Order: sequence, then C-alpha cells, then structure tokens
Amino acid sequence: MKIVSLNSNFNNNQYYDFVDWLQDDLNLVNKIIFENLTNNSKLISDLSSHIINSRGKRIRPLLTLACAKLCGYSGSRHINLASVIEFIHTATLLHDDVVDNSKKRRGKDTANYIWGNKSSILVGDFLLSKAFRILTKDGSLKCIEIISKASEKISFGEVKQLMSVKNFETSESDYMSIIDFKTAELFSAACQISSEISEITDIKKKSLREFGKFLGIAFQIVDDTLDYFSNEKQSGKEVGNDFKEGKMSLPLILSYKRSDPREKKFLQYILKKEKIIVSDFLWTQELMKKYNIKEDCMNKAKHFSIMAKDSLGTFPNSFEKNKILNLTDFLMSRVS
Amino acid sequence: MKIVSLNSNFNNNQYYDFVDWLQDDLNLVNKIIFENLTNNSKLISDLSSHIINSRGKRIRPLLTLACAKLCGYSGSRHINLASVIEFIHTATLLHDDVVDNSKKRRGKDTANYIWGNKSSILVGDFLLSKAFRILTKDGSLKCIEIISKASEKISFGEVKQLMSVKNFETSESDYMSIIDFKTAELFSAACQISSEISEITDIKKKSLREFGKFLGIAFQIVDDTLDYFSNEKQSGKEVGNDFKEGKMSLPLILSYKRSDPREKKFLQYILKKEKIIVSDFLWTQELMKKYNIKEDCMNKAKHFSIMAKDSLGTFPNSFEKNKILNLTDFLMSRVS
Repeated sequence: MKIVSLNSNFNNNQYYDFVDWLQDDLNLVNKIIFENLTNNSKLISDLSSHIINSRGKRIRPLLTLACAKLCGYSGSRHINLASVIEFIHTATLLHDDVVDNSKKRRGKDTANYIWGNKSSILVGDFLLSKAFRILTKDGSLKCIEIISKASEKISFGEVKQLMSVKNFETSESDYMSIIDFKTAELFSAACQISSEISEITDIKKKSLREFGKFLGIAFQIVDDTLDYFSNEKQSGKEVGNDFKEGKMSLPLILSYKRSDPREKKFLQYILKKEKIIVSDFLWTQELMKKYNIKEDCMNKAKHFSIMAKDSLGTFPNSFEKNKILNLTDFLMSRVS
Repeated sequence: MKIVSLNSNFNNNQYYDFVDWLQDDLNLVNKIIFENLTNNSKLISDLSSHIINSRGKRIRPLLTLACAKLCGYSGSRHINLASVIEFIHTATLLHDDVVDNSKKRRGKDTANYIWGNKSSILVGDFLLSKAFRILTKDGSLKCIEIISKASEKISFGEVKQLMSVKNFETSESDYMSIIDFKTAELFSAACQISSEISEITDIKKKSLREFGKFLGIAFQIVDDTLDYFSNEKQSGKEVGNDFKEGKMSLPLILSYKRSDPREKKFLQYILKKEKIIVSDFLWTQELMKKYNIKEDCMNKAKHFSIMAKDSLGTFPNSFEKNKILNLTDFLMSRVS
C-alpha cells in the first residue's frame, strides 16, 4: 500500500524513486502515526488524520529514514524517530495555519478552517506532547535533546517571523535567521537523530546536521518563492498568502531593496492596507518580474542546496548517498 | 526579595507561612525562569514575564519544592524541575486564554488581549519546548517521562473539554475525567518529580502522585465554583467566563441535572444564544442558589481534598508534612 500521494507539482521521477526506496519503512512510520492517533478523542484523530493524510510529501521523516540507511543503521528505532519528526512538523503546521489565517494547505481546506482555531491549537499541543512521549519511550537523552532544541528554535523562529510582519526594515539576514530557526532546524534534526542512533564518526554526524540545515534553508526559499510564482493548483496552498499576511519573505525583501523610492512607497502603502486585494498582488508580481526576483531567489536556494550536497562529501559514494543527492535536486526543481 | 504577591482572596496566613517556608527555593526558581526568558526576542520575554509575574500563586512549582523537602531531598535539581512545571503551566494558560477568549486573568489583561492570539500561541509553544530543554539538561528519563505524559494528558483534557462545550449530555464523570486530565495531571507530576529525584520507597512515590492528583481535582472544582460565586476582584478572573463560553463545569452540570423541564429548556436556550447577557448569568446564579450548587460543589471539592491529605498517610508526621496539609486546607478555604 502506497500511502504517500503527491501534489501535482510533484510529478518528478526522482521523488517517486526516493519514496519507492523507503516505502517499507515509510509504511511502518505511517502505522506508528496512526496507532498514536487512534484510542484518542474523535476530534484528535479526525483533525490529525486530516492533516497527516493530506497529500503531504513526508520530506522530513523520509530524511530520517534515508539518513539511517546512509549510516548503515540496521535496527528499528528510526521508525519511531521518523514519526516523532512528523508529529513535531504537523503540530507546527496546525499552529502556523492558525497564526497565518490560512484556509488552504496542500489543496485542501486547513484544519483551522474546518474545525476552528481552538481545535487546531489544542490538537497541535497534543501532537507536540505526543512526540516527546514517543521519544521518552525510545529512551535516548541525546535524541530528546536534539528534538527539544529544534522544537524551541522552531517556535523562536515563528515568534521572530511574527514580529517582522509588515516591517520593511527586515533584512535578508534577518530572513535567513528566521528560516534557519523555523524550518532548517527540523530538517537538521531529522537527519541528526538518525546519525545519533548509528555508529558513525562525529565528523559524519556533523555533516548530516549541516546537510539537513542547508537543505532546509534551500527548501524554505523555494517555498517562499512559490508563494509568488506558482498557481494554487501547483503549490496546493493559497498563492499570495505570505503577501496577504505581510510576511517578510525573501521575494518581498529583495523587491523592496531594489525598488525606487516611488515603488518603495507604494509597497509600504499596500502592506499597510487593512485588506490587500488582487490588483495589489498583481502589481507586486510585476515589480518582482522587473527586478528578476524569481530567478535570484532560486539561485540563492540553489546555492544552499549545493552546500547541502557538498556537506555529504564526508560519505563515500554509495547507492544511498546518490538517492539523497537526487532528492535534493528534486526539491530544487519545483519551480525552476 | 519576595516575588510572589497575592490576589486579594489569598490573604490567609496558611499560604503566607507556606511561601515563607519555601521562599529561598522559590527565589531560585524565579531566577531560573527569568534566565530562560531573557536572551530571547523581546516579545517572548515581555509576554512571558507578563503572565509569569502576574500575581500567580505558583502553587504547582511550590508543590514540587515542598515535596522535595518532604522527601528529605538535599540536592538542587528540584529548582530546575519546579521551573519546568511553571513553564508547562504558563504555556497551558497562554493557550487556554486564546481558546477561551479570556480578557482577564489574575486581575490583569490577558496576554492574548494585549499582544494578540498569534503571539500567545507561539510563545506558549516556545515555553513548552523550553520546559523540555530544561528537562533534558536535568537528564532524568524518568522525569521526562512524567512531564511528557502530563503534557499529553493536559492537551487531551483540553480537547475533551472543548468537545463538551454547550453539550448538556456531559455527565459529572465526564467532567471528572476532563479535570483529571487538564488539571490534576500537572499537580500530580509536580509532586511526583520531586519523589523521583529522592531516595524514597515506591509506596511513598505512589502516595505523592495520588496526593497531587486529588489536590488538583479539588483545586479545579473550587476554581470552577468560584467562576459562578465570587466577584472579579476576588477571583482575579472574569466571573462567569466559563458560563459565557458554554463550558460544562460542575456547577452547570449539577444545575442542569437538578432542574425541572422548564428550567432545563431555558438553560439550553441561554447556552445556545449567540451572546449570553448579564441577566442570563444572574438567572443561572439564582437557579444555582435554589439547588444548593455552591455548597454541594464545595463539599465535593472537600471530599477530594480529604483524599489528598489521607494519601500522605504513608509519611510520618513532620514539620514538612504539616505545612503541606495546611496548604491543602488553605486551597479549600478560598470560597468557603
């Protein structure tokens, strides 16, 4: 049974190959996830299943599974740990969608839109706590440390992001720091925990941590770029959502920096409005075209994806390494 | 420096005695809390300080400190663990106030009212993660297990409570199960972690776990009763807030069960209204007077507080035990 289905923009063979390679493990991860969501209240299982089953790419838990294979790990702990990663990620998504007032994710109505903000907040809390329960059963203090650190940083990054909303003083490095915390930390943790349960050198552990971090940064830049340059059908999310929320993501930061005084003033005017309308978004997209924002953002993402790939230089070439490198390329190909 | 200040309904010498006894340790706990909140973003430190410094009673961390003394613990780990308990509690309060749309807590504006729901959600997540970070540094898997279990149950209880809103089929035992999860688990964990770091018998550990559980149940029943029978100045919270939110707490459940068909119908009508007005609340208070709800709820709370005290029967009489028994009496005296 193949549980992962794909968004229409994920039609690349590299991704299917990657999932095929890990399908057996991924089925076990899905089993753990469902076991932990049943025997609970109906709201918890309905709401969590809605988001966990909604055509997500499972990139983060897949990274845990892939890194375990790369490290030659032969036990079964990586299954539970991958489910922990998915629980943390899902908890974050639930709270994010409330914070962002999102109505669509992966082409479906968001949980907060269907069940209300209150349910999303509480079920998010439940999933976060559940993640730590599973971790405790695994029993590795080192893994708990990695995840609790990541979890702290994610919420810290989200707070920083919230504080930068509609603030045109947000610089590219402020943005980098925000996505490092809110996204790259969990990618990094997803890779790191597999290295911790394996018998590999510290230098290789460090490589995996850095691989995850750079991949996470690249991934988020692509995501933020897609928010301006794809259509809803492709991205599965509401396009222009970041813009409507006044989120200072890379495309907007770069556009502002490159704008002439009149354009700067108009951008500020738009973002200060109570309700941003379609023509505001179209105007901003035109501005971005003028300043080559899409290409430049993608090049920056590319830069980090190359750093990610080079981080794996400490591992000899292998079937497993090749699969992971292919996934990295695939993740970059989403808008190019 | 005395950091704990008191609500006007907390003018009882038993409580002052209790805090005086633990003041040195409590100052250290406050120090840990502040250290963990500074070096962060301004929003996190402002918002957390607002709620943590707002005249809270610090009952839960005080229980951890008191139980450590009862167990003859002589180290310093209980300080960090008490701060973990306060972080978990504060995270819960932040999310609760969003879920309940509360505007007042402890006589002050709530964090969500001042900084908005988004900030409260994210800072709550941050504090929850921070709690697990501190726990990881402490390094006891057993303590992490206790807290992660409590944290999972708290959010589960909150979800159950949310699902029972305005549902007159909610029974007294449904209510007991909800408060057991959402309140008593953390009280229990607060006592249990101190027993885990001490060298005491398993039977005493069990006693402390049960003491905390029964005390938590008694405490919540008193709290829910205060929501109908105190004024805002006394309780520091908006009175009638549970009622406005349609929360099926004990006073409302009992009132409904005891009502005649006409009263039942009217109660249902009120709670179905989009906006409950003052006269609705006054009518319900009169109904509660008619059916002796305040006294009966307080008697039920008393029943659990006696069970709490008897749980400590495994400990010989001592100065420390006496202080804890006095605190239990004090917590019951809030509305009697």
